[in-house]
Amino acid sequence: MLKTVYLDHNATTPLHPELKPKVLEWLDIWGNPSSIHWAGRGPKTVLREARRRIAELLGVDPLELVITSGGSEANNLVFKGLLAQSGSSRERNQIIVSGVEHPSVLKTAMAMKEYGYSVDILTVSRDGNVDMDHLQTLLGPRTALVSCMLANNETGHIFPVAEIAKCAHSAGALVHCDAVQGLGKVDLNLRSLGVDLATISGHKFYALKGCGVLFARKGLNLKSLIHGGSQERGRRAGTENILATASLGFMCTHVDLVTAQISRLRSLRDHLEARILAEIPDVQITGKGGSRLSNTSHMTISGIDGETLLINLDVQGFAVSTGAACSSGSPEPSATLLAMGYSRAEAQSSLRLSLGWQNQKSDIDTFVDTLKQVTERLRGFNCEKGC
Amino acid sequence: MLKTVYLDHNATTPLHPELKPKVLEWLDIWGNPSSIHWAGRGPKTVLREARRRIAELLGVDPLELVITSGGSEANNLVFKGLLAQSGSSRERNQIIVSGVEHPSVLKTAMAMKEYGYSVDILTVSRDGNVDMDHLQTLLGPRTALVSCMLANNETGHIFPVAEIAKCAHSAGALVHCDAVQGLGKVDLNLRSLGVDLATISGHKFYALKGCGVLFARKGLNLKSLIHGGSQERGRRAGTENILATASLGFMCTHVDLVTAQISRLRSLRDHLEARILAEIPDVQITGKGGSRLSNTSHMTISGIDGETLLINLDVQGFAVSTGAACSSGSPEPSATLLAMGYSRAEAQSSLRLSLGWQNQKSDIDTFVDTLKQVTERLRGFNCEKGC
Repeated sequence: MLKTVYLDHNATTPLHPELKPKVLEWLDIWGNPSSIHWAGRGPKTVLREARRRIAELLGVDPLELVITSGGSEANNLVFKGLLAQSGSSRERNQIIVSGVEHPSVLKTAMAMKEYGYSVDILTVSRDGNVDMDHLQTLLGPRTALVSCMLANNETGHIFPVAEIAKCAHSAGALVHCDAVQGLGKVDLNLRSLGVDLATISGHKFYALKGCGVLFARKGLNLKSLIHGGSQERGRRAGTENILATASLGFMCTHVDLVTAQISRLRSLRDHLEARILAEIPDVQITGKGGSRLSNTSHMTISGIDGETLLINLDVQGFAVSTGAACSSGSPEPSATLLAMGYSRAEAQSSLRLSLGWQNQKSDIDTFVDTLKQVTERLRGFNCEKGC
Repeated sequence: MLKTVYLDHNATTPLHPELKPKVLEWLDIWGNPSSIHWAGRGPKTVLREARRRIAELLGVDPLELVITSGGSEANNLVFKGLLAQSGSSRERNQIIVSGVEHPSVLKTAMAMKEYGYSVDILTVSRDGNVDMDHLQTLLGPRTALVSCMLANNETGHIFPVAEIAKCAHSAGALVHCDAVQGLGKVDLNLRSLGVDLATISGHKFYALKGCGVLFARKGLNLKSLIHGGSQERGRRAGTENILATASLGFMCTHVDLVTAQISRLRSLRDHLEARILAEIPDVQITGKGGSRLSNTSHMTISGIDGETLLINLDVQGFAVSTGAACSSGSPEPSATLLAMGYSRAEAQSSLRLSLGWQNQKSDIDTFVDTLKQVTERLRGFNCEKGC
């Protein structure tokens, strides 16, 4: 049987092994937390405890959290719950988002144009940095919200969100941070980060799919995206997903299990990049030298079609990606790379490797050997056709 | 240890025992279904298979289903995805909903007023029937959508949705049916029902929480409520909850396990009501003699505060409710009963019993014995205070 190596942890993570027996326990706590009889008390307690654990990790108050079905819903809630209100003051009708945000931020921001907002795209350079001068130019008395992710899902670049928040607050704007890729990979205290809103997701953090969280600091008048029952203090209707929420709560308490891997993954990643640069010609590591997530390596391999490469590596058991999973199979090159000024050809030659704690040095070495062979072969084909 | 008896299956159902080992299997299929490498293929297959199973049970095409995080989200999607579009033709700007809909329908319909819609409430009588003459009066060339549930969550009354759909279609309106309480309790073929949109939910059907489905027939221009990735053919962004969806798919294939209980539960329910009417004075069964879900019994017990009754029954191990779980703990009487013309006092003396397949005749008998004692005691207190 083919040995498989998973190098796509930014798309989703395997379930933490310690969670499996816990899930079995939680399956028995099937009541509706809104019920006021015995069957409701178990799930209500599990939910309260999970919320407390998540809040503790993020350094915020449990009541400042709105539990959603995932990161995408939480990101949508920011814009639609805060900005798409009738009667809201429209003195501030400008939204600023970085050009490399996740589609659930970018597309939702764009959808706010229907409500009379203008959307400005904050420039991100080829090496992955936010242009802070551009931010200053864009900010003004009309700015309602600035949304900038903590770390990019494709390049792994970490953005100076605390600094961005200070600038935005000086202009009187609110600040949202999509921190989905940061959770477990960098220290994530939302108070120190200084943002008004932030998004995290369970399934990028070794928890179950089906749970995201929006932090919305006290005092924000957040309206519900999903109308109905009064769950989540009226900010998100629908019977709660106890299982997924409990799994995220569990991981928040056991965050050390994840953060303990950070430096090991950085060494692995650095070894991976060193070997690739030494052994495969014409590879550019994106944002090398910049502030990056320790588990992520993004590169362009000239003369190679990323998707063809992915399929060839998959045949040999390696799971990698060319960009965001949610755009997989799309013929369009990565919108993130295009926003960073890459050409379509460059963007289409991209490869993202995102490591996780099951990855060992031997996996990385076998991977580089395979990548070298596959790259040589594909470049050979291209040369036969084109030279 | 106190023996517990769960009589609140319309709030949520226990997980089907056969699902537990399946859940353990599915936990190993943790990949992102959008990934095009090996880790994505397992979950993609599970998702496709679940969608096929759900579609087969409902008698529709798998591509007509939008998988959501639950029934509330699916109900919201109907209104916000279909009606809240800019540029949509506003020749039809009237919404008709029955007065006894779930809050996720009623409140969402009301929220459409912001978009220029008027909302008319279809009268439901004291015995639970929709006033069809009233429907005819309301329907007209302005009607965009009629939304009527298949069966009421509180009273168990089954509505003539097929007939309502015919009338609405004659007027050129679309028809939505919140069928959450019908799944597994009545035959549910959406083609025969003749509706354009319908909602179901997993956790009322012995599956996991975290999965609802909106059926939207081919040709409807449904916009996404959650912007982002292109999951669900662009109609619902966010990484899919494989586990919950698979559990609903499993239950759809094993629907016989649930429907096989229908006649047994009807006998139990009828026995329950016969004993209560014979042994406890001044009890009115809501809609008795009408078309009702076989598992549901709703009553008003004069001189008794429903919540006090619930708490007293809970102490003795019986899980019952006064109405919808999502309004539990609210001091307000049931909006459903008020809409049916009940007084606040009557509505506050209500009791809902909803049976499921673990309930045995002995449980029902012990329950009636207990209810009799508790009712006598509470009425005695009231009499001491008030007589």
